Amino acid sequence: MVETTQRGLAVVLLSGGLDSCVTAAIAAREHHLALLHATYGQKTAGRERRAFEALADHFGVNAELRRVLDLGFLGALGGSALTDGSLAIPRGAPGEGIPVTYVPFRNAHLLAAAVSWAEILGAGSVWIGAVEEDSSGYPDTRRTFLDAFERAVQLGTARGEGLVIRSPLVEMSKAQIVLRGLELGAPLELTWSCYGSEDLACGECESCWLRLRGFAEAGVPDPLAYRHEPGGPGK
Amino acid sequence: MVETTQRGLAVVLLSGGLDSCVTAAIAAREHHLALLHATYGQKTAGRERRAFEALADHFGVNAELRRVLDLGFLGALGGSALTDGSLAIPRGAPGEGIPVTYVPFRNAHLLAAAVSWAEILGAGSVWIGAVEEDSSGYPDTRRTFLDAFERAVQLGTARGEGLVIRSPLVEMSKAQIVLRGLELGAPLELTWSCYGSEDLACGECESCWLRLRGFAEAGVPDPLAYRHEPGGPGK
Repeated sequence: MVETTQRGLAVVLLSGGLDSCVTAAIAAREHHLALLHATYGQKTAGRERRAFEALADHFGVNAELRRVLDLGFLGALGGSALTDGSLAIPRGAPGEGIPVTYVPFRNAHLLAAAVSWAEILGAGSVWIGAVEEDSSGYPDTRRTFLDAFERAVQLGTARGEGLVIRSPLVEMSKAQIVLRGLELGAPLELTWSCYGSEDLACGECESCWLRLRGFAEAGVPDPLAYRHEPGGPGK
Repeated sequence: MVETTQRGLAVVLLSGGLDSCVTAAIAAREHHLALLHATYGQKTAGRERRAFEALADHFGVNAELRRVLDLGFLGALGGSALTDGSLAIPRGAPGEGIPVTYVPFRNAHLLAAAVSWAEILGAGSVWIGAVEEDSSGYPDTRRTFLDAFERAVQLGTARGEGLVIRSPLVEMSKAQIVLRGLELGAPLELTWSCYGSEDLACGECESCWLRLRGFAEAGVPDPLAYRHEPGGPGK
């Protein structure tokens, strides 16, 4: 157990998407991983869960250090196209402002869950694959929010300043994230990003759009198959 | 609906205990209330839920504006005597440090849920009955934590600075809270504070101890009946 102590344990929020996969690969260079996945009534929850388990297998994380939390109350509160069947998932590039796929304050819930688990495990860091620069414009992916939340964590937990929030992708573009993932050997073929479909990625929702543009700008093929492949970001 | 708009809607976290009841009574002076209760696997969840419903009836809040959320994952993570049957609830006065009844980062989860609901409802404030001075020593009841969390809310939500966190009791003693509640006509007889029992309050757990001391110092009788009434704070 000496090695575990030396390297330290990190709780990584792992949705199963591209960004969280690369975040886990970065964390794994320095830490042992505890992987946390959440379902909150999102339409593609089953597919995301399968991606989570496949990634956890890849990273060699045992059952005790992988956890799936039911945040179903978030979906039950409503207010987002990700969880409300009456609201359509938008297609194509994100527009101006906060999109209808925003789940109000979702990342605060995810971070709070990871922090609670980190307190119990004695982990020294919580990792989240939030992306500010090249994202859908959700307010809870901003670096300023993450910094403020870290301050709240350090003031509001038993562990205090021994617990930090790490978001290594927050200022990266999607293309940079793809390239960083490939450089680290992250299993991008196991990830799932599509908001609208669970068999073949739709290729049309804003999440697919951002992902496809990232691979196109990186100049590498996306290992996933798509139902519609719009031909890249210029479209 | 003009009056609702003028007075504004406030989301109040209402556990069913003394502090949250008085907080709701304070909020009700200026706002229409939306009441949020959470279960998280705590041993007295059923009794607390009944107190919540009785208080919501008292405040005249209709079904659409009262919500009970299942944060069962918090209990499932473990780490607290409030939710873990293998850990005993301590008796008497809180000791030094953070007690075993601390549920790691619980108030962050409660506040995040209230903030998500406030975003959906368009409410301008979230109220929590956190008490720093005369409490069990939980880190997530400190004013510094609440201020930092408010900053995270304002940076991480669509509503931004239009959403504030109010914690009117944070610097009050339990006796002051009792007297403020009586002054406002808050229905203290409908509240439940005991951590250990669901029929008659035990009178021995730290929550009963703090409550009984508060009533004793205020010089008024507690309307609840107790199995053991230790004779006040001097004991």
